[in-house]
Amino acid sequence: MLKRLIGRYARRMSNTSAAGSESTATGKVAQPEWRKPAPQKSKPVLKLYNTLTRTKEPFVPLSGTSLVSWYSCGPTVYDASHMGHARNYVSVDINRRIMSEYFGYDINFVQNVTDIDDKIIIRARQNYLFDNYTNGVTEISDSIVEKATSATVAYINKNLNAEMTAVSEFSAWVASLDKEAEKEKNPKFPMHVTAVSNAILALENHRSDATRFFELIKDVMVPVLDKELGSTVNDPEVFRKLPAYWENRYNDDMARLNVLPPGVTTRVSEYVPEIVTFVEKIIDNGYAYATDDGSVYFDTSKFDNSSKHDYAKCQPWNKGKMDLIEDGEGSLSTKNTSEKRSNSDFALWKASKPGEPEWESPWGKGRPGWHIECSVMASDILGSQIDIHSGGIDLAFPHHDNELAQSEARYDNEQWIDYFLHTGHLHIEGQKMSKSLKNFITIDEALAKYTSRQLRLVFASAQWNNQLDFKESLVNEVKSLESSFNNFFQNVRALQADNIHRQEELSYNISKKLTPLEKKLLDDLQATQEKVDIAFCDNLSTPQAVKALSDMVTTTNSYISAVGNELKIEPVIAVCKYITRILDIIGFAARPDKLGWETVSSSENSAGSVEDVAMPYVKVLSNFRDQVRSMAISKADLSEFLKLTDFIRDHDLLKLNVALDDRNGQSALVKFLTEEEKQEILKFNEEKESREEAKRLKKLEQQKLREQKELERKEKAKVSPLEMFKTEQYSAWDENGMPTKDKDGNDVTKSMTKKLKKQWDQQKKLHEEYFGTSN
Amino acid sequence: MLKRLIGRYARRMSNTSAAGSESTATGKVAQPEWRKPAPQKSKPVLKLYNTLTRTKEPFVPLSGTSLVSWYSCGPTVYDASHMGHARNYVSVDINRRIMSEYFGYDINFVQNVTDIDDKIIIRARQNYLFDNYTNGVTEISDSIVEKATSATVAYINKNLNAEMTAVSEFSAWVASLDKEAEKEKNPKFPMHVTAVSNAILALENHRSDATRFFELIKDVMVPVLDKELGSTVNDPEVFRKLPAYWENRYNDDMARLNVLPPGVTTRVSEYVPEIVTFVEKIIDNGYAYATDDGSVYFDTSKFDNSSKHDYAKCQPWNKGKMDLIEDGEGSLSTKNTSEKRSNSDFALWKASKPGEPEWESPWGKGRPGWHIECSVMASDILGSQIDIHSGGIDLAFPHHDNELAQSEARYDNEQWIDYFLHTGHLHIEGQKMSKSLKNFITIDEALAKYTSRQLRLVFASAQWNNQLDFKESLVNEVKSLESSFNNFFQNVRALQADNIHRQEELSYNISKKLTPLEKKLLDDLQATQEKVDIAFCDNLSTPQAVKALSDMVTTTNSYISAVGNELKIEPVIAVCKYITRILDIIGFAARPDKLGWETVSSSENSAGSVEDVAMPYVKVLSNFRDQVRSMAISKADLSEFLKLTDFIRDHDLLKLNVALDDRNGQSALVKFLTEEEKQEILKFNEEKESREEAKRLKKLEQQKLREQKELERKEKAKVSPLEMFKTEQYSAWDENGMPTKDKDGNDVTKSMTKKLKKQWDQQKKLHEEYFGTSN
Repeated sequence: MLKRLIGRYARRMSNTSAAGSESTATGKVAQPEWRKPAPQKSKPVLKLYNTLTRTKEPFVPLSGTSLVSWYSCGPTVYDASHMGHARNYVSVDINRRIMSEYFGYDINFVQNVTDIDDKIIIRARQNYLFDNYTNGVTEISDSIVEKATSATVAYINKNLNAEMTAVSEFSAWVASLDKEAEKEKNPKFPMHVTAVSNAILALENHRSDATRFFELIKDVMVPVLDKELGSTVNDPEVFRKLPAYWENRYNDDMARLNVLPPGVTTRVSEYVPEIVTFVEKIIDNGYAYATDDGSVYFDTSKFDNSSKHDYAKCQPWNKGKMDLIEDGEGSLSTKNTSEKRSNSDFALWKASKPGEPEWESPWGKGRPGWHIECSVMASDILGSQIDIHSGGIDLAFPHHDNELAQSEARYDNEQWIDYFLHTGHLHIEGQKMSKSLKNFITIDEALAKYTSRQLRLVFASAQWNNQLDFKESLVNEVKSLESSFNNFFQNVRALQADNIHRQEELSYNISKKLTPLEKKLLDDLQATQEKVDIAFCDNLSTPQAVKALSDMVTTTNSYISAVGNELKIEPVIAVCKYITRILDIIGFAARPDKLGWETVSSSENSAGSVEDVAMPYVKVLSNFRDQVRSMAISKADLSEFLKLTDFIRDHDLLKLNVALDDRNGQSALVKFLTEEEKQEILKFNEEKESREEAKRLKKLEQQKLREQKELERKEKAKVSPLEMFKTEQYSAWDENGMPTKDKDGNDVTKSMTKKLKKQWDQQKKLHEEYFGTSN
Repeated sequence: MLKRLIGRYARRMSNTSAAGSESTATGKVAQPEWRKPAPQKSKPVLKLYNTLTRTKEPFVPLSGTSLVSWYSCGPTVYDASHMGHARNYVSVDINRRIMSEYFGYDINFVQNVTDIDDKIIIRARQNYLFDNYTNGVTEISDSIVEKATSATVAYINKNLNAEMTAVSEFSAWVASLDKEAEKEKNPKFPMHVTAVSNAILALENHRSDATRFFELIKDVMVPVLDKELGSTVNDPEVFRKLPAYWENRYNDDMARLNVLPPGVTTRVSEYVPEIVTFVEKIIDNGYAYATDDGSVYFDTSKFDNSSKHDYAKCQPWNKGKMDLIEDGEGSLSTKNTSEKRSNSDFALWKASKPGEPEWESPWGKGRPGWHIECSVMASDILGSQIDIHSGGIDLAFPHHDNELAQSEARYDNEQWIDYFLHTGHLHIEGQKMSKSLKNFITIDEALAKYTSRQLRLVFASAQWNNQLDFKESLVNEVKSLESSFNNFFQNVRALQADNIHRQEELSYNISKKLTPLEKKLLDDLQATQEKVDIAFCDNLSTPQAVKALSDMVTTTNSYISAVGNELKIEPVIAVCKYITRILDIIGFAARPDKLGWETVSSSENSAGSVEDVAMPYVKVLSNFRDQVRSMAISKADLSEFLKLTDFIRDHDLLKLNVALDDRNGQSALVKFLTEEEKQEILKFNEEKESREEAKRLKKLEQQKLREQKELERKEKAKVSPLEMFKTEQYSAWDENGMPTKDKDGNDVTKSMTKKLKKQWDQQKKLHEEYFGTSN
């Protein structure tokens, strides 16, 4: 019909034409002028804090469209991930989610796994050698003790800067030190003292327990073993298994922290040929050189002096800082730097020594340097210019600056990365986290103490690029924030359920008419929405956004308590859904009804199908049924069935947080328990069981005692009364064996006879009882 | 540390300064120049098809920020919602979701409920009168028959344009008509014929069944009752209950269609005072006038002739179309239009006649006109200028054009609505849907035949502002599209599970290295993402977007089958998650793992807590356990336990779609069944049971037969051999009762004696067997 009309009447051709004046005989039939809306404000634009300018820059993706490329520095997999990792990966995850879910960018998110690295090589080789050394050894021989002793002395002299000849000197020496001063000089001082103390403890007290002995001497022993035998380790499997294990642990940790997996994961070990080609190209472009030992170095001076390039774009002030540079080169690097043209030059390719994994290359057998990996893998997937590169701030120099130099040297372009986003440091109670400071927290440990949600809320409460001090007071603030959200969500759901319930009872409708109070609430919601938009545009500021949401909770709570029964549910739901949506965007998964976040951590809940949820319960049922069948078939005693039903209640079901209250003559009451309730019942049952066990033990004891007595009695009964007085005490007896004269030949006194007769009668009775000779 | 450095070194102050040239004694320490990214393309902007210009206009919200105001025309609640409603509300829901979830707008979405309306008044009053008339009547009296007869005649004459005096004339008359021609003239012809035929059927065949009688005569009867008694209905409750009921049914329907509820719902009945004030203001502004009968009309000519205003901005070509205008005025409007200054003028306030609900006003008791409701309610929540107004295209004139006129007259502004979005018509198999064409489908009926997901997919497959022809072939296309998505999601989940399973078995990692095949797949994904972005920007084009997703499924399936065992899971997951996200945005709720849409409709799944899901299974377990206990306590036979376990398997668990396969010497295998699999097992068990029942019955029959035979035998045995031949056949016997002479006195022949002796011997044996007289 519309089309027909378009044919019949003149069609407005442009918005700005004054079509309103057009008319026909029947009046104005063409559409009048439409006025283009004139916005009241201008929308904030998304800005990101870019390390390359140390400024918040407007974000402009290269594509010009929704497509964004993002390379995130991933883990070096040789040990458990810790809170520093958690801070980086959760913050990057939050940023990625906001960019994708709030700003609508389609992100190709690539993250590497560094599975070739000096730390991995050393750890893998040492574990392997120590396992070989201790494997099957159950007794600590003198030669082991001797070796451990000299290893301890070597460890002391090397790591504690001492000159000892015997272990016995250690305790006096260490007692004489000012420990605080030593720690100041060398932060690893306490760690080394612990290692030595453990070794001495093993040598002095644990020679009889091989397992414990080896555990205690491991730290001082592995450097010795590695020095002696490290170069003999040439099975590539040794260097593959360790990183594979820790990569999987890292993935588990990230899943528990609800960090989205990367779109693409790249592993260094799968990229060696590409790395070789990339290095060749840098050499071809004149920015790298091979050395006689078969390594390749990047020529930083040549690069920095070229008119097109700059070295160390992130942190130019760190150029030449040898501690940072050496740390970046790795502990297996040749310390002979005479082959480098400049101290600032860094390895692109490292010749491998015996006991190090190796790959073929034009420069001989070797392995990639650390920095080159990321340049090659990022470029392979995302190309020669990338929108975003993220990582921890400690990687800015030299790692990321070297990446930039390598890639810009390889592609001979001016800007490989447009936005370099560095997450800030994590401190623990004001101090750098380190194993030697004993404030080192693994993700495992953190998740034993806090929920994944609490940790994410901690990270979201800080600006991602600022330093974060993880301290008790902050965690407490976050817990109180969490409760306030929780209470709000529960409250809104309860109000909605009540509203639905009341509506179902009524034949008319509950009023939905907004009063000025609800209109004010909606205005506040809109102000919050603008605040959140401003916050996210302002360098993805989650602290500002979370604050705005939290304030809106307070405002809504005030409304709820002010209106009482006159509450209008719709604006409250609107507030709740908005808060839920924003929290969902930053990684707090929403309930299916969108009224609040999931009550359990999303990782626990992610399975979710009826089958997944119901299966454990059905399994218990099925096993129970199996047992009933087999007991019925094998004609078990009926009491066994009762015992089985108790066991199902007290073990299988309780484990699934289900309590059954058996009731006389009624079916059992089914209850789903909270974890606390379950623990209480478990404790109660345990106490009951241990009381019963004690009772049983006591009964057993008494039984044993009775049996013992019985045995003694029987032993005693063996003696016939005729024989019982045939001892040296007497010298003559009558026919019944009753003594008549004592050992001296005197007559036994009457009173004594009477006494002995009584004993004789008793023995007769006892003897006859057991041996039945009575008539 | 950063801060300290900032102090020590000159800081780059601007991006464009040539900071690169800055240097100190140690070389370049300030950051070099950063190059602002130069986008390769320009991002498409969101355009919406605006009825006010019949062009796709770039969307610019008034706020300038993320805030958007949206008023959606809601239901008039007097009957069940149908597929036309479904099309409108689901399409608006999809548009709203894309604007909010994809483009990130914070929408204040207001929708009205029209619960004061002529259709509601008539329906409520007639139902009320008919209920009163029939209430408690169990026998059809002559007076009822008489009244029904004359009502039928009146109905025929009024609605079928006939001039009959008796019902008996009807069948011959109707038989003589060319039905197709009549239908052409009057589309409601078949509906009226049906009403009359029903009434005649009642009168002829159903006088003895009052319920059936009243059911059949209702259509012809209500106009008569309403004419007689309509004006006596003055209980406001009558006019409140009916819309309240249908409002709740509408909400149920929308929930089942997964349409998000409005942020704010406004009901006309809660807005009468505001409407009165609004009308007063229009009168004050000179664009409306009250008439003597107590109504108020809008002065369309005055408005249209003002230099600032235009009447009928949406469809100016429909100005003066009386059929549309009268339809908009409602069937209870006074047909005396002499009080209007122009035929195009429309009621803002209607004086209420007796039998119509009424509210106080300066013009006497009355009620709001239809169009004014929306102007008042939308303005009350969203103000005097609104970003978006949506509704079905059939409402464009006069309803929406009148809304625009009213509001612009009230606020004396030029543009009340910036974007008017009209959803296209719905046709059924090429025809307009109508009750008389018998192609009328309620949402209830549609949901009995199709799933909510299939319906949404049908709507998403058409451009929201185009006409949609709902036909079998389209539904089949959509079902095949649905299967293809389903299969893809299932396949990806299976591949992922397999990948995880394989990884768990291995000590090394499965390769993640992308080959050119996977890089191509990622390129295709990015192309799809750009296509979807272009589609959504192009007037929220879901057909284009869904097509792009569906093509990407095909591409990915090809990849999957091409690579076989060499499949890399990550890019497949990336594709799957992207498709899931876009489908989720248009209202197909995602699974918690984001790998596909929910397998069940979201409304079924929204309960979802572990307790809710697990409870039925735990209940079965608990009951089973109760029975085992009580059987053990009451010392039941062991075979009873086995019977019980069979019962649990074949009834309780099967009801919950769980099958247990008992295995010899192994625990039973647990399987969760689909509905089809369950039905199959139920059928199999039923057949087995009926076979067993038949066997049992046959056995019983045979048993009975045996008993019968036994009884007969015993009866026969009662006769002593001495007496057995004492019949009239013989006349003499020996001492054993053997016949010697026949009835005629002749000797019994030898051969006969031999034969009889044999019988005698048999009877003796039988008799002795039962009565033990043998020696």
